[in-house]
Amino acid sequence: MKVEKISELTTNRLSIYLRCLNELTAQGAKTVSSDGLAQKFHLNSAQIRKDLAYFGEFGVRGVGYYIDDLRKHITKILGLDRRHCVGIIGAGRLGMALADYYGFAQTNFTVAALFDADRKKIGQKVGEVEIFDIKDFSEIVKRDKIDVAVLAVPAEFAQEVLEKVTEAGIKAVMNFAPIPLRARSDVKLKTVDLTISLESLSYFLAKPNNLNGKNVKPNAPKARIKK
Amino acid sequence: MKVEKISELTTNRLSIYLRCLNELTAQGAKTVSSDGLAQKFHLNSAQIRKDLAYFGEFGVRGVGYYIDDLRKHITKILGLDRRHCVGIIGAGRLGMALADYYGFAQTNFTVAALFDADRKKIGQKVGEVEIFDIKDFSEIVKRDKIDVAVLAVPAEFAQEVLEKVTEAGIKAVMNFAPIPLRARSDVKLKTVDLTISLESLSYFLAKPNNLNGKNVKPNAPKARIKK
Repeated sequence: MKVEKISELTTNRLSIYLRCLNELTAQGAKTVSSDGLAQKFHLNSAQIRKDLAYFGEFGVRGVGYYIDDLRKHITKILGLDRRHCVGIIGAGRLGMALADYYGFAQTNFTVAALFDADRKKIGQKVGEVEIFDIKDFSEIVKRDKIDVAVLAVPAEFAQEVLEKVTEAGIKAVMNFAPIPLRARSDVKLKTVDLTISLESLSYFLAKPNNLNGKNVKPNAPKARIKK
Repeated sequence: MKVEKISELTTNRLSIYLRCLNELTAQGAKTVSSDGLAQKFHLNSAQIRKDLAYFGEFGVRGVGYYIDDLRKHITKILGLDRRHCVGIIGAGRLGMALADYYGFAQTNFTVAALFDADRKKIGQKVGEVEIFDIKDFSEIVKRDKIDVAVLAVPAEFAQEVLEKVTEAGIKAVMNFAPIPLRARSDVKLKTVDLTISLESLSYFLAKPNNLNGKNVKPNAPKARIKK
């Protein structure tokens, strides 16, 4: 359990490094040191060296990293050199916003289809993406080689939809319903719970002195200032 | 830096505990042990005890936790006993989906207003929420006591909008633009980058044997099976 979590934090950091390297390339840079990368993007240089060493030796003494090589390596590690096809279940406002999401175009994920049970929506299009009947899910998954499902359905239907999606052979699922779901052990389920993000803002607003490493233990006695 | 991160992971877990306790209450339970909570919701019981002890002693020997008391405590710790007013900037599909987001209704956050620069949208409503001219942002923030901003604008405008929002006195910002933004040190910025979530799915699809704690170091030689 813990090991898997560490691995996900690491891949999240690799995603961020890749974004920074892309920006450096756009600026015309060819090489970068871990210190340079850390400084420019407010990252931790020791962490960068550790993360990259974990996947093999990329750095060159006295030079740092060749940006182009490093981008290729990280792209491969993250599996971003393979295309994936996404099916979004739920053609409400959120599902349609996701079909249209700018970020998808930046990645190796292409939204192939939307699915809904509402007859009025079926056959309509959001940009290039058609809305299909959820009843035809398995069929469209096979036809379009969909390998990732995004759940944008109301919370009360999410578990049921997850099971339907899993039965159709999908192994990677992103869930936006703000409830915990249970997936089969061979399925990777990633829940994006915006409520939890909101609650961390709430915590900050309740205790604004908690920023910048001044992490005061709420029940601990305050340090006395000597006069 | 690290300390702040730990604190956020902890508050995220508190959010999850609270959700579980709400479910137990709905089922009529009055008390729960850390082991019971862990088993029922696939959590780590030692972690639960550690997290809760950090904020004071809640458990009672031989009984576990009184659910109602614990809910009240966590609600207070997370600042969920105070209402917050949210302004969403960007009335595109994502912004409108967020104005309508089911999860908001579950929290102490109320969406008070949407903002956009597009004249055709200004004055329209999404459910109960009106779309205002971004030019009137500071004024509406004061009028409606908005203390949280959600950025649902295209990436290229996000930094500029963040600065506008900060100038209006907002201290807590949730950003959906998939780029790193720089906030003043007294502002809590929470970026929800869906691209990073997608890339962790991509990593899983490239290396499906990575689940269930079988975290194979990608470059490490495979263990040989003795015959």
